[in-house]
Amino acid sequence: MPIVHRVLNFSAGPAVMPMSVLEEIQRNLVSLPGVGMSILEVSHRSEAFESILAQAEADIRTLANMPSNYKVLFLQGGASMQFSMVPMNLLAPGATADYIDSGSWAEKAIKEAKKVGTVDVAATTKGENYSRVPRQNELKLTPGAAYVHMTSNNTIEGTQWKELPEVGDVPLVSDTSSEMFSRPIDISRHGLIYAGAQKNMGPAGLTIVIIRDDLLQRSVERAATLPTMLNYAVHAEHKSLYNTPPVIAVYTLGLVMKWLIEQGGLAGIGAVNDRKAAKLYAEIDRTGFYRGTAQKNSRSLMNVTFRLPSEGLETVFVQESTVAGLDGLKGHRAVGGMRASIYNAFPEAGVDALVSFMREFERRRG
Amino acid sequence: MPIVHRVLNFSAGPAVMPMSVLEEIQRNLVSLPGVGMSILEVSHRSEAFESILAQAEADIRTLANMPSNYKVLFLQGGASMQFSMVPMNLLAPGATADYIDSGSWAEKAIKEAKKVGTVDVAATTKGENYSRVPRQNELKLTPGAAYVHMTSNNTIEGTQWKELPEVGDVPLVSDTSSEMFSRPIDISRHGLIYAGAQKNMGPAGLTIVIIRDDLLQRSVERAATLPTMLNYAVHAEHKSLYNTPPVIAVYTLGLVMKWLIEQGGLAGIGAVNDRKAAKLYAEIDRTGFYRGTAQKNSRSLMNVTFRLPSEGLETVFVQESTVAGLDGLKGHRAVGGMRASIYNAFPEAGVDALVSFMREFERRRG
Repeated sequence: MPIVHRVLNFSAGPAVMPMSVLEEIQRNLVSLPGVGMSILEVSHRSEAFESILAQAEADIRTLANMPSNYKVLFLQGGASMQFSMVPMNLLAPGATADYIDSGSWAEKAIKEAKKVGTVDVAATTKGENYSRVPRQNELKLTPGAAYVHMTSNNTIEGTQWKELPEVGDVPLVSDTSSEMFSRPIDISRHGLIYAGAQKNMGPAGLTIVIIRDDLLQRSVERAATLPTMLNYAVHAEHKSLYNTPPVIAVYTLGLVMKWLIEQGGLAGIGAVNDRKAAKLYAEIDRTGFYRGTAQKNSRSLMNVTFRLPSEGLETVFVQESTVAGLDGLKGHRAVGGMRASIYNAFPEAGVDALVSFMREFERRRG
Repeated sequence: MPIVHRVLNFSAGPAVMPMSVLEEIQRNLVSLPGVGMSILEVSHRSEAFESILAQAEADIRTLANMPSNYKVLFLQGGASMQFSMVPMNLLAPGATADYIDSGSWAEKAIKEAKKVGTVDVAATTKGENYSRVPRQNELKLTPGAAYVHMTSNNTIEGTQWKELPEVGDVPLVSDTSSEMFSRPIDISRHGLIYAGAQKNMGPAGLTIVIIRDDLLQRSVERAATLPTMLNYAVHAEHKSLYNTPPVIAVYTLGLVMKWLIEQGGLAGIGAVNDRKAAKLYAEIDRTGFYRGTAQKNSRSLMNVTFRLPSEGLETVFVQESTVAGLDGLKGHRAVGGMRASIYNAFPEAGVDALVSFMREFERRRG
């Protein structure tokens, strides 16, 4: 056996995956047992793939304890494509959609929705550099809105909603890209949930959409003008096989879902994620050398953002941590500083390694 | 070494890939040398991936002998998404687009374009069950059309253009999904070329678009209303990194491009493809037991479609060929019969095996 060199991958996505999943993909890469071809070659119309897709969906339903009146769609284009698909499907002419502006990705969602129809920004924390998510009493909701859009975890700013906002009977639409299936989720409080797979669920190139059945009627009503590929109802009707889906991405996501079930499901992985984040935030708060950028009651369990006393020290920190095999700690170019993304598959031992590195760095440079 | 069982994969796409490519992906699946993570985990913003993307583009340019005034885009959504993106970007209000209707996929392209603007069908062979592509003298072209859309290889019906239609100064837009890079191509005669990767170029989940620079201006003019993710100019400006691309699909396509160069480029692989198709059509024409469905001067080198004397025999043929390890020969559900898809990576020995099977089947059942 050759020794496999692996770094600790703190990337914000695409991101680290479970080692057992990678090993299974590797083992069967040239020929899936019982199929005789690579997953890269398998027809999406084959029994083999239909079974892979059905199992992935079943495991998603199990993990999320999903009510039966929701559909699961396997799409392409990432959250960025959803920024347009959501209003194109759900926002009728003359209606208004409420958007909660909690960060850079929420801003992008708003920009795309405004191309489609009327948008009201129900609340924004931009004035505080998005250092927290809005509070319930700050939300100015439009009565009878088409939907309320939120971003449940703000990847760039390192903030996260601790509980869902109360929006009454209006469908809640949530971009959960950077937290989906990292903690228990109450599907029934949502109208639509979407997430790019490449953080907690699988590789880049696959988007999961969960949509409540009654909302599909809005897509049906727009079918005459809506591009078929952007129509939720079409994908629901064809069980995500209207056209060729990204086969290896679906297969990989399926293996990750199986792994998640083995971890004790969302409650099990949620407890691990709580512990990992708590260790890191404790180190950040220990002496004041490090400074968390998110306000404490909005801190993300997924993306831990922090600064050092100077930009010069931050540059050195990135250089030295990279050399030490801690990869991807540089913050998003839009905000600077450090960001440790510690998704589901990021090992707790890797968090311990970062804490040790931070402590040693402070000792030498503090 | 365990013995790896592999079938002969005649699927229309996703389809067979070169064995050397699969083996390289397998070898490095857990950790890319010099990177220390799986290609399934690598950030699209990393130097490692930027280099993979740049090399894939460079090899595409080399293979196609591409003029410098064309951009190569790596997108998602397949040809089906292009059916909408093409008119949304290129068809201005008040203008007309000409579509050549040569098969089932062309029909779908026309249906989507009609949602966007005015479409003229310049020619159709639907009345002949799409058994051939239209002739030059049948094309009724609109002077000053926004573009002319064609489907260069009709996957379902097994027909292919032997030479490009003459369309004057109007940009020619070609859906080359099931033939791209299977034979030499004159990029300069096109305004835009698109192809889902999952036949000759890579796995499902990646779409290649080649667009002439001057056409990007049309996208710029529509930016205020066009969804950002559907805007060619945005993807060109961001070098296909506006959002997260399907990383492993781009990596795999890059390896296939390298393999294609090793085969002698498009001229080299084109000669092999000519020979493979000729063997199969010779067997179809040998006695009259088999009957090709495409007219001879429109026969596809990629998808060889044929019938047997009865549907009963066709059912037996599919059953027995599957048992013999010849997989995926059943024709598309829309047209019936048999279809042997023999893309670039399909081995010539596999064609020989099918010819032997056909001869033996005829001997027993003819």
